[in-house]
Amino acid sequence: MTKENVQGAGEEEQQAQSKKALKKQQKEAEKAAKKAEKQAKLAAEQQETDEDDFAKDRYGICPMVQSQQKLDRALVRVQDLTPEKAEQQIWVRARIHTSRAKGKQCFLVLRHQQFTVQALLAVGDRASKQMVKFAANLTKESIIDVEAVVKKVEQKIESCSQQDVELHVERIFVISQSEPRLPLQLEDAVRPEGEGDEEGRATVNQDTRLDNRVIDLRTTTSQAIFRLQSGVCQLFRDTLINKGFVEIQTPKIISAASEGGANVFTVSYFKTSAYLAQSPQLYKQMCICADFDKVFCVGPVFRAEDSNTHRHLTEFVGLDIEMAFNYHYHEVIDSITDTMVQIFKGLRDRFQTEIQTVNKQYPSEPFKFLEPTLRLEYKEGVAMLRAAGVEMGDEEDLSTPNEKLLGRLVKEKYDTDFYVLDKYPLAVRPFYTMPDPNNPKYSNSYDMFMRGEEILSGAQRVHDAQLLTERAMHHGIDLEKIKAYIDSFRYGAPPHAGGGIGLERVTMLYLGLHNVRQTSMFPRDPKRLTP
Amino acid sequence: MTKENVQGAGEEEQQAQSKKALKKQQKEAEKAAKKAEKQAKLAAEQQETDEDDFAKDRYGICPMVQSQQKLDRALVRVQDLTPEKAEQQIWVRARIHTSRAKGKQCFLVLRHQQFTVQALLAVGDRASKQMVKFAANLTKESIIDVEAVVKKVEQKIESCSQQDVELHVERIFVISQSEPRLPLQLEDAVRPEGEGDEEGRATVNQDTRLDNRVIDLRTTTSQAIFRLQSGVCQLFRDTLINKGFVEIQTPKIISAASEGGANVFTVSYFKTSAYLAQSPQLYKQMCICADFDKVFCVGPVFRAEDSNTHRHLTEFVGLDIEMAFNYHYHEVIDSITDTMVQIFKGLRDRFQTEIQTVNKQYPSEPFKFLEPTLRLEYKEGVAMLRAAGVEMGDEEDLSTPNEKLLGRLVKEKYDTDFYVLDKYPLAVRPFYTMPDPNNPKYSNSYDMFMRGEEILSGAQRVHDAQLLTERAMHHGIDLEKIKAYIDSFRYGAPPHAGGGIGLERVTMLYLGLHNVRQTSMFPRDPKRLTP
Repeated sequence: MTKENVQGAGEEEQQAQSKKALKKQQKEAEKAAKKAEKQAKLAAEQQETDEDDFAKDRYGICPMVQSQQKLDRALVRVQDLTPEKAEQQIWVRARIHTSRAKGKQCFLVLRHQQFTVQALLAVGDRASKQMVKFAANLTKESIIDVEAVVKKVEQKIESCSQQDVELHVERIFVISQSEPRLPLQLEDAVRPEGEGDEEGRATVNQDTRLDNRVIDLRTTTSQAIFRLQSGVCQLFRDTLINKGFVEIQTPKIISAASEGGANVFTVSYFKTSAYLAQSPQLYKQMCICADFDKVFCVGPVFRAEDSNTHRHLTEFVGLDIEMAFNYHYHEVIDSITDTMVQIFKGLRDRFQTEIQTVNKQYPSEPFKFLEPTLRLEYKEGVAMLRAAGVEMGDEEDLSTPNEKLLGRLVKEKYDTDFYVLDKYPLAVRPFYTMPDPNNPKYSNSYDMFMRGEEILSGAQRVHDAQLLTERAMHHGIDLEKIKAYIDSFRYGAPPHAGGGIGLERVTMLYLGLHNVRQTSMFPRDPKRLTP
Repeated sequence: MTKENVQGAGEEEQQAQSKKALKKQQKEAEKAAKKAEKQAKLAAEQQETDEDDFAKDRYGICPMVQSQQKLDRALVRVQDLTPEKAEQQIWVRARIHTSRAKGKQCFLVLRHQQFTVQALLAVGDRASKQMVKFAANLTKESIIDVEAVVKKVEQKIESCSQQDVELHVERIFVISQSEPRLPLQLEDAVRPEGEGDEEGRATVNQDTRLDNRVIDLRTTTSQAIFRLQSGVCQLFRDTLINKGFVEIQTPKIISAASEGGANVFTVSYFKTSAYLAQSPQLYKQMCICADFDKVFCVGPVFRAEDSNTHRHLTEFVGLDIEMAFNYHYHEVIDSITDTMVQIFKGLRDRFQTEIQTVNKQYPSEPFKFLEPTLRLEYKEGVAMLRAAGVEMGDEEDLSTPNEKLLGRLVKEKYDTDFYVLDKYPLAVRPFYTMPDPNNPKYSNSYDMFMRGEEILSGAQRVHDAQLLTERAMHHGIDLEKIKAYIDSFRYGAPPHAGGGIGLERVTMLYLGLHNVRQTSMFPRDPKRLTP
């Protein structure tokens, strides 16, 4: 109701209203007439189709695939459509990426995952007028089966991934129809940000993407990001298994929040309360105390932090490592940095297509790393920052801007996007961090950085029950709450160190992206719990 | 306070009490005297040690390993102590498994993970009386570094894993001391259940084990179980990655409980409430609708069921698969069963040591499977049960006892511990299960069984928004709550099927164990949230 209507109905207004009503009636009548006309046309077409269409068995909408039959028909993948298949008659299943009618022809672009191919229907021996029209009217994103002959093309088809061939369609059947109105257009969703502004074309904002993730994940960029992320996990595990690590599974529902209870989510657990684990650390350490020696786990970690930044999620995937060492925690640093290097090399060598695809939308410099990995002491980092004009205390923690600045300084000086900062001030680390034996103000702890952002935090842990008790008391932690943790170290505990890596951050920073929501399929933050 | 004391203090009682007090005083005096005596003795010994001990630099308690130095000393693993190393002088780090003094000698059994070796100290050129005594007094489970010469032995040492060699110790240093009183004895914890009863020896009950998991996990049996479980995960993923699957990460905190809200844990999420995911199914299916085609994930799933059985946990690890298929969901069944077969083969071929180790404590028949996997229809299963005297309706679900019985009947008839039961009655499956196209009472769904217990439940899913809506309404599900789920299928969805496997059950049943808590490192059930 508009404001005017609310103010009461004078004569003038009543007149206006009846005028409006009339107009509405007229409109509806027009609409009905149009509909009738359309239906008549459709019926005529249908009749024409049924009666006169020599190709009527060559196209149509299939009944829902309900496993009615075991069809002995091989489907060729779009990515395998190359000139070697020229002149072969094949079946392909793909989505309608675009469709364009042009006279007696219909040009389709068919898409499967990151790959596209042009397909052509032309009125002639194999296709009727009705069949071409049917193809032209198919909704974008519908899934179809086509039978076609693969043809080499003279001029490369620049708009498709399969540039040397096109398909001459002989049969076309719909497997699953898409609704005609898509909540976002795939071509908008892959447009580089600047480009959209300049040419007045649409780009898709992040919330629209995430709200319609099932469509956004179909873009070449999303397909590439998450295939590469699957690769990160695989490389992480394969490298560690080769090094003799054992994979463990740690519980996510825990009875006590070990580090004082801040930033934990509470769970109703039957008649009591429990918490969601902020990290698997206690459990990793228990496995070390239980002689597994080298363990890793990949799983969700939960942080109830109300941080709405580009790099914080309330739920993310932790790649966690814990390892007993012989005499010095640098044995563990070396093991972790080598694992990271194996991941970087594996991505570079095995996921170049994905990297290039992401770069088209989000350009970035290739990720650089050294072998062996650069390791700087915290003091050195502070000195570099001071030389660049930053004022900070010796025992002060690094702010996020200072971390980024240090990343740039390190890149300039050492030409690497990956390095370790070792020997953090004891005061800024958790109570279970082993103090430096030579300087009580420092500790045997480290962070690792990619493109100036932290991706791993780790340390030698205190493995002595008595020292652990002292350190907890120093931090004012209720000993009763961490009794089980401390008791784990009473029956012989090997010296050990470890760390936790954020999977989404590694993917984001390796690809040079700028928001961790781009590398989480279904991100969770304080404001987002769906889809 | 005893009941007697509470009843008031008559004269008799007062006398009794003063007697008691006297006795207490006497006892304390004796204690003090003994303590003084002991201290004097220790001091004398210490002096003797310091003054007269030629070996005093060859043993002792090391300062806590705080990464003071990078010692260039290779440590040989216990499992690598073989006759090839005879006469070599080496360093070993291990736990004191047992220690036994015998005259001027001390026999130690050193343990690392599943492996043990005998070590000998004898008073002589290399070891003093004091040094042997020091070794004899070390507490079980302490971690030590020893320098020793490897010696071949004439008679096999049956009690150790390394039967052909022993260590002649020349130096012995404690890295981490264990408290003298262990909450459980490792030799009790690996004793086969029957054996304990017969010989009057202790076994350890499950709660004691779980309460002291950090020690219980050190047993050869636990080490073997969890190394094998790590293998299950690795084989699962490697097989699927070879088949072109992509690993995905799905959120565990979700905004709505999709299947009506029963059996879900509630989480406080900032100012609102959320739930813990009972399965990644919706997310797996969204990935299929987003063209990932073949996806898997490994992660925790949560069930708020108050079931206190041998096979239910409130948190377990799901090995989940979802896959688009061309024409028939049996394509997916074939893919899953082949994956299981690859797991069984991999375990058989690569984890035989672990299988044998577990069998020592928990004897079981080797796990049998067929290639290709046996697939029976539900109807056939019901017929077999009826032939065995079970009365049940056509559309009735299988009870747990009937599942087990059917497992035995199948084993007898087909000689396999693994099979698929296909085409369950539609009525007993979730709303998103695809009905059988030929008989509306049945469905395109299946369970898989190991040794007669269900390890996987799966189905072709309804991929058509309209049919899904109808099915949800038929089940009385609030459409508003599953709108996002149904909407996922509106923009073209490939036909697909999948299933979820319980990791702990697979490990348990493969090894022929009888409680899922044995194959969960830190199990969670309605009554257990710790450690």
